[in-house]
Amino acid sequence: MSVRVHVPATSSNLGAGFDCVGIALDRWLTATVSLEGQGEGVVLHRAGRLSTLTVAPQEDLLARGFSGACVAAGRPVPPDVTIDAVSDIPVGCGLGSSAAAIVAGALLADAALGLGLSRNRLVEIATEIEGHPDNVAAAVYGGAVLSVRTSSGLRSAALTVSPDLVFLLAVPPFPSDTRAARAALPAVLPHGQAVLAASRAAALVQGLATGDGELLAVALLDDVLHVPYRRARIPGYDVVVAAAQAAGAYGATLSGAGSAILAIAPRARAGTVGAALLAAWRGAGIAAELLRCAELAEGATVSAAPRTTHHSPRTIHQT
Amino acid sequence: MSVRVHVPATSSNLGAGFDCVGIALDRWLTATVSLEGQGEGVVLHRAGRLSTLTVAPQEDLLARGFSGACVAAGRPVPPDVTIDAVSDIPVGCGLGSSAAAIVAGALLADAALGLGLSRNRLVEIATEIEGHPDNVAAAVYGGAVLSVRTSSGLRSAALTVSPDLVFLLAVPPFPSDTRAARAALPAVLPHGQAVLAASRAAALVQGLATGDGELLAVALLDDVLHVPYRRARIPGYDVVVAAAQAAGAYGATLSGAGSAILAIAPRARAGTVGAALLAAWRGAGIAAELLRCAELAEGATVSAAPRTTHHSPRTIHQT
Repeated sequence: MSVRVHVPATSSNLGAGFDCVGIALDRWLTATVSLEGQGEGVVLHRAGRLSTLTVAPQEDLLARGFSGACVAAGRPVPPDVTIDAVSDIPVGCGLGSSAAAIVAGALLADAALGLGLSRNRLVEIATEIEGHPDNVAAAVYGGAVLSVRTSSGLRSAALTVSPDLVFLLAVPPFPSDTRAARAALPAVLPHGQAVLAASRAAALVQGLATGDGELLAVALLDDVLHVPYRRARIPGYDVVVAAAQAAGAYGATLSGAGSAILAIAPRARAGTVGAALLAAWRGAGIAAELLRCAELAEGATVSAAPRTTHHSPRTIHQT
Repeated sequence: MSVRVHVPATSSNLGAGFDCVGIALDRWLTATVSLEGQGEGVVLHRAGRLSTLTVAPQEDLLARGFSGACVAAGRPVPPDVTIDAVSDIPVGCGLGSSAAAIVAGALLADAALGLGLSRNRLVEIATEIEGHPDNVAAAVYGGAVLSVRTSSGLRSAALTVSPDLVFLLAVPPFPSDTRAARAALPAVLPHGQAVLAASRAAALVQGLATGDGELLAVALLDDVLHVPYRRARIPGYDVVVAAAQAAGAYGATLSGAGSAILAIAPRARAGTVGAALLAAWRGAGIAAELLRCAELAEGATVSAAPRTTHHSPRTIHQT
């Protein structure tokens, strides 16, 4: 028995939607699993953007997603789990490579072992590993997703996105240290700042739904929860954001904790804004890559996979 | 020259939309102004719910709205300003009686003196007097309104409201001390609480638009910005909120800073929820009044008024 999952990249936060809003992007991690073998434990084959990873087997997020789903369903991890994964999602750049890996692992376990986990349960399992739900929920459901913690668990809801909006991501060739970016956040905020934060998260939801440029601007540019504490960690941040605005974007902000920068623009300005993002970063001596999403991606899918035998130099054995 | 304004009651906050979300309700303050006289200054005639007011002339919000608009437009307050006002908005109960008076005063000045103030400018002027924009913006624009502070001023945007939602307000016969309710708020919040607040404000906007009961529940019931610090000030609060939920409301919360409690319910449960709100408060020894809004009210309107001569025992002279 072999299954294949296809999980999108994601961008989270979108400025004021810190730890609660995510969008799915047209870059993908594809993974297959096979449960045959002679008791070798978890075996991973990595390709594409994953091939440079040096994560220890017990920390690999595909494996952690897989076992997390098994544990949540009260089932043992099978004696043989061979995962082949290939991805074109830049790693560590704020495009949800971690969330994609965790979701892929959990979905592979669910499908291959018939765990019968709901999508919402999969989001909860993956969120527990990831630490925040925004990328994970967008990877599972696709489109734009709001996730809120309720008294009965995590609740994700699809957000409406105006068809006039285009999402552009400029990805520099260096990663951001997510853990350090999180450690840079303050322990407390003045109450008035928390009030501003709430109004701007509301503006983000309304701006996405209607394409209202002023609401999107305040949501993207005036976050008070995380961007002020993180922007200095990304070289060129201020220049690139200013260039996006000057080129006609409604605003721009960190994708996740960076290093990528997300701009949201009216469809008619997509080309100009994309060029401006790259030019601004080039001006700072950085050769960034552009990811342009005229439409947000669908969520993760599962399908039957042809059986493959794979021998990769980056095989990792986890027993 | 005489003009008449008609300004709706409002409910603000709706739980997680603290200081940024307001809705217009079908209760009204109606006021006319005449600029004729012999230099008596500002003269006020109050009727309806306003007739019990004992506010000193220089603190009256109709007069402050009127002069605030004059000052903002760079114009002197005329030597004779006679305002007749009647209202069926309960005063001091969290139904926007203050905002209605300020907006009415500012609109009267704008219309009678031809100040040419935009609606957005009127909201800014009234917000400066009121201290927060949520009631004021809903009173001016009607429906449900989000107000956010941007780098270039205050921005208000209409929110979509699902036609399946009904808004019920149970108004007890005692006011709430707004100033004390604001003083009860903490100076700082843990960062994690601010993050929760943002996600729940986002949930409010999305819940209103779609009628998603789970999102509305978390927005109404799990606010962390103000309700936890204010609920104990309203006798019967917990019992009334629980009764609303048990009767099928998505949730209930303080209207503004109270004393009224707002419940949002699916249309089919409006009768049951309304009865439950009153019964719960009756059980706490309180005879509350029910205000049921199957549709949110339109915003403030201005029209020409027939000339009237009015002599009321509550005339206040302000020179």
